Amino acid sequence: MSSARQEKLRRLLAPRHVAVFGGDAAAEAIRQCHRIGFAGPVWPVHPHRTEIEGLTCYRSAAELPEAPDAAFVAVPKEATVGVVADLAARGAGGVVCHASGFAEHGPDGVALQESLVAAAAGMALIGPNCIGLLNYLDGAALWPDQHGGRRVERGVAVLTQSGNIGQNLTMQRRSLPLAQLITLGNGAATGAAELVDALLDDPRITAIGLHLEGVDDVAALSRVGLRALRAGIPIVVLKSGSSELGARANLSHTSSLAGSDVLCDALFRRLGMARVHRVETFVETLKFLHVHGPLSGTRIASASCSGGEAALVADLAERSGLDLPPFPPSTEQRLQQLLGDRVAVVNPLDYHTYIWGDLPAQTACFAELLGAGLDAHLLLVDFPREDRCADGAWTTTVDAFLAAHRTAGSAACVVSSLPEGLPEQVGERLLAAGVAPMQGVADCLAAIAAAAEIGAAQRKSNAAVPLEIPVRVVGEPHQLDERAGKQELAAAGVAVPEGVLSDADGAPEAAAELGFPVVVKAVSAELAHKTEVGAVRVGLTSREQVRDAVGGMAGLAEVFLVERMVAGAVAELIVGVRRDPQFGAALTIGAGGVLVELVRDSVTLLLPATREQIAEALRGLRIWPLLTGFRGPAADVPAVVDAIAAIAEHARGDDRLLELDVNPLLALPRGAVAVDVLLRRARRTDD
Amino acid sequence: MSSARQEKLRRLLAPRHVAVFGGDAAAEAIRQCHRIGFAGPVWPVHPHRTEIEGLTCYRSAAELPEAPDAAFVAVPKEATVGVVADLAARGAGGVVCHASGFAEHGPDGVALQESLVAAAAGMALIGPNCIGLLNYLDGAALWPDQHGGRRVERGVAVLTQSGNIGQNLTMQRRSLPLAQLITLGNGAATGAAELVDALLDDPRITAIGLHLEGVDDVAALSRVGLRALRAGIPIVVLKSGSSELGARANLSHTSSLAGSDVLCDALFRRLGMARVHRVETFVETLKFLHVHGPLSGTRIASASCSGGEAALVADLAERSGLDLPPFPPSTEQRLQQLLGDRVAVVNPLDYHTYIWGDLPAQTACFAELLGAGLDAHLLLVDFPREDRCADGAWTTTVDAFLAAHRTAGSAACVVSSLPEGLPEQVGERLLAAGVAPMQGVADCLAAIAAAAEIGAAQRKSNAAVPLEIPVRVVGEPHQLDERAGKQELAAAGVAVPEGVLSDADGAPEAAAELGFPVVVKAVSAELAHKTEVGAVRVGLTSREQVRDAVGGMAGLAEVFLVERMVAGAVAELIVGVRRDPQFGAALTIGAGGVLVELVRDSVTLLLPATREQIAEALRGLRIWPLLTGFRGPAADVPAVVDAIAAIAEHARGDDRLLELDVNPLLALPRGAVAVDVLLRRARRTDD
Repeated sequence: MSSARQEKLRRLLAPRHVAVFGGDAAAEAIRQCHRIGFAGPVWPVHPHRTEIEGLTCYRSAAELPEAPDAAFVAVPKEATVGVVADLAARGAGGVVCHASGFAEHGPDGVALQESLVAAAAGMALIGPNCIGLLNYLDGAALWPDQHGGRRVERGVAVLTQSGNIGQNLTMQRRSLPLAQLITLGNGAATGAAELVDALLDDPRITAIGLHLEGVDDVAALSRVGLRALRAGIPIVVLKSGSSELGARANLSHTSSLAGSDVLCDALFRRLGMARVHRVETFVETLKFLHVHGPLSGTRIASASCSGGEAALVADLAERSGLDLPPFPPSTEQRLQQLLGDRVAVVNPLDYHTYIWGDLPAQTACFAELLGAGLDAHLLLVDFPREDRCADGAWTTTVDAFLAAHRTAGSAACVVSSLPEGLPEQVGERLLAAGVAPMQGVADCLAAIAAAAEIGAAQRKSNAAVPLEIPVRVVGEPHQLDERAGKQELAAAGVAVPEGVLSDADGAPEAAAELGFPVVVKAVSAELAHKTEVGAVRVGLTSREQVRDAVGGMAGLAEVFLVERMVAGAVAELIVGVRRDPQFGAALTIGAGGVLVELVRDSVTLLLPATREQIAEALRGLRIWPLLTGFRGPAADVPAVVDAIAAIAEHARGDDRLLELDVNPLLALPRGAVAVDVLLRRARRTDD
Repeated sequence: MSSARQEKLRRLLAPRHVAVFGGDAAAEAIRQCHRIGFAGPVWPVHPHRTEIEGLTCYRSAAELPEAPDAAFVAVPKEATVGVVADLAARGAGGVVCHASGFAEHGPDGVALQESLVAAAAGMALIGPNCIGLLNYLDGAALWPDQHGGRRVERGVAVLTQSGNIGQNLTMQRRSLPLAQLITLGNGAATGAAELVDALLDDPRITAIGLHLEGVDDVAALSRVGLRALRAGIPIVVLKSGSSELGARANLSHTSSLAGSDVLCDALFRRLGMARVHRVETFVETLKFLHVHGPLSGTRIASASCSGGEAALVADLAERSGLDLPPFPPSTEQRLQQLLGDRVAVVNPLDYHTYIWGDLPAQTACFAELLGAGLDAHLLLVDFPREDRCADGAWTTTVDAFLAAHRTAGSAACVVSSLPEGLPEQVGERLLAAGVAPMQGVADCLAAIAAAAEIGAAQRKSNAAVPLEIPVRVVGEPHQLDERAGKQELAAAGVAVPEGVLSDADGAPEAAAELGFPVVVKAVSAELAHKTEVGAVRVGLTSREQVRDAVGGMAGLAEVFLVERMVAGAVAELIVGVRRDPQFGAALTIGAGGVLVELVRDSVTLLLPATREQIAEALRGLRIWPLLTGFRGPAADVPAVVDAIAAIAEHARGDDRLLELDVNPLLALPRGAVAVDVLLRRARRTDD
């Protein structure tokens, strides 16, 4: 990205002056700028009107007193292109285009959108087909409607492909400090990745939330994702389209390429972006990250004055992959002294109500909790309805927690079991004191788990490698025969069974020379599902059996591969590489055999992948214990990782490869062997 | 349960008069009775005070003008026993005991609790160690603290083992009509099952929520669960202890037997009780069931004016196991006419904002949605913050939806994506009109899925069989040898491999007579893990191999079982029966082999189980497709079900059986064979 383009986008995102184009929508934007206190001038532009909302109108961009940093264009779609051209000519920083009827509306719309992008001439352009942009840092509301937010000094930025979800997010009652809300619309010119890049330059942004329906530019997102990871700015992704129906709904919405959800997942994991699936979790995770940033581990402490709640915390923590280790002995001892014999001091702690309303005792108790030295420390408390009840003792509890937190300074949060159990004014007070005000136990724990996941990714970010931009593979798909596929793999350093090619007559003798038992396979590039058509016979122990086997395959091929059977496999793995037009080469590692499809035990990585990433993927499989010696010998894991890495590198380095499947890769006590190979590549017409 | 005891409990749950014992706590109970408008007399009883809260005190239960229907006893634990005895003598209906320090506090407390139960002499007794009982139907607050609820005419009853969670539930801002809130405490006398039984007699109760930490009386809960199922009153369970830590937290809390979580799950499924894991889901599910009751299926329709939200609904619906089928063609056609060409009419529907604020157009659109004839119909809409925004168009949307609903009458709900997106006053309005006001999309869909699950269980409730009360198995555990175990199974009608017993010398000839290949097993009651100690050799194809095999097992046994090897298995299953002291006999069916422990593909049923329940459990396994012919022949499923049913019945009928494991049961294209059997039973000393 050129630095001139970056500078323009920076002006749009932190404008000194704003121009608004249009009628009622522009008037509303002016009102909203005033409501949230934009300090600079707002210039309405209208061809006929003389004033809007008490401000004198200019007739065109050319007449403006200065080149505006930001413009909100809410005129009909046909007029939008001209206004954008005028703004570009005037030297504006950037423009938010509100009109719809562009690429989301068929071929005519696509053409109109192309002319819009051309008119922008490198100026930053958000939309079209978006509601707008709310900048709560500077008070710039390029936004034609009401919204629920307020000015903040620092906070999280949210980019969303849904205007409605964006508007709803401003209405949250969860003390989330929203700094920037940008609705992307069609993302015709300035896309999510470019915006994230610009937001990373603003020190007032503490975390970034992306609500995506698809990933349009994988390489760009990968670049800024790595930049964010290294800069320590956490990113949370709410991506829809995990279901087939959801993906279809996206497709019909903003003309996004939905992409494969599995590949999106792989991308987010690679970039240390935490993925969530509910709007509530999105908000809670961003809020936690705003306060505490990424965490260095998954160990938490919890206290409540209810055993029932302690049990729920324990259950939900396990589901989120969090640990509740015992308190350090000294902490346990002091808590026991403070709370008395009637309280069992364990983590999660039910501290009972004996000290309820007692500020010094509660402060001392919470100081121990917060001093336990874990990665995050929770106080679970639901506040009474303030319209029907008094909250004296609850305020004491908050006072005590904050007093303890001032001394301890560790990552702390107050969480209510029902989201509405934490009133907004209490949330604001906690937030101001550096305590995360969390609403809903499950979402709180999911947020903590996300913060730990991002933290782990950050610690590995130095080793992270950018994705390659996928090449477009052209040509007729062509499948290699088994023998040729194995020769390629062997040349790439992957062990394959010892074997020879033979015609039908020579097969029995070839087998005897190799040594029994053997496997016989019919060799032909036409055979894909060899087992199903009877083109494979295993466990043959005599010349006679080999002769019979070859006889049975007579119609299938002229040539046969006779291989020594590999015995003693600890586990069967499937290792596959596919080339996706959007995401490039992707490696899938899973449990082999028929069970892979039934139990779906697989992990997908985008390439290139490091050995450590491959090893981590293996550890993530449910069958991982098999490899480490579950009721039997252990596998040679380094050899398995080597073989997978060699398969991945071979596939990645070959830009005409479409598909490479090793199924199974046998993990042995010593070594790993690719027993069956399927390789398809695109053949050039001159091949 | 005697009818006199039932009548007393009924008086406690719908009292005409209330007596309160104690000081400040009793005073608060009086204030709370007045706040929620209890119509009858409230009588304070205190040995010294002359009046409490303006009411004249009685000095003892004996002096009361009448035998009170309900009494709230908030005196110290030692005094509680005497007060309860006095109330029983006076003929009170029931008592809620607030004091703690009973069974949850060691042996002395257990003894005190026993004397408390004896003092009650058949009178209903809730607690001790509980906060109290809030009866919002009659306005009786046997409750020593503030709470957030209001009077209702009908609604849901919630029983909880956590006073804190109970109190928090009264503070919800979700329009849940709470009719009864009962905190169970130690459940010393009147337990959850007896209370549910009584609540089923009250036509004002629409649904029941149970927050449990353990199940104390499985047979009793099973009985009332079946009664509720047949009476059409849905039950939702929030049970903690799914994690090991959570189970431990429960154990230290109210001295509940935590029980095995898997068996609890099996019990709830059997009884058509929907289990949830979050407090939010608990509230939302009860609310949906209050309005619509159980559903007849999982097919839903959804509308929102946002494509982003439609995609989220699609994703989350899939996760909840709900279907979003296409609209009927006539509905689709009319919606297309109403909404115009720019709207793609699909389910989930993004109806865009073209008709936003247009009452007739929105009414017509929603009438089509609600007339689609599905099991539930959702309108997704988040309301603006009323303190910062106007809500004119949103009110129009609600008006339109309610107008459409008056005509259609189908199961309808309005759901907000953020829980706080549906203001309480809107929720009350929807509720009054018979539309479920749902807060949070994921929880709404979970609630609908639960309602469908309960509906399915209700439709099968005629075939449901009560659980048997578990017998206590005494005696020394004794393991049968392989041969004896197989003979028992064969006698019970389960096919086992053809085989003969032989000494070492005779084994080769015995094998030749059976026909190769064979399996040889060392036979001894001492051998449990035969494979691991080398006591099994499979695939032996000659006399010589049999001789070698037997030779290798020389130290393990004197006698050997020689069996014909069973070939052609479609799948290996594990079928096990265990006898649990609380739940009785439980049958586990799973994928066999080493993978069962890694992929945890198993289902547990409590016994007795019908053939249909067994078949359903099989269909729930991930490896089910294997049985129906996944990449190979199909298994003889009726024979598999027969074999499992015979194993289950054999184990259940034997009240000294501790454990019966068939692993594997081979599912064949024709038949099913138990290849390995482990059977342990308790041996009487005179055996």
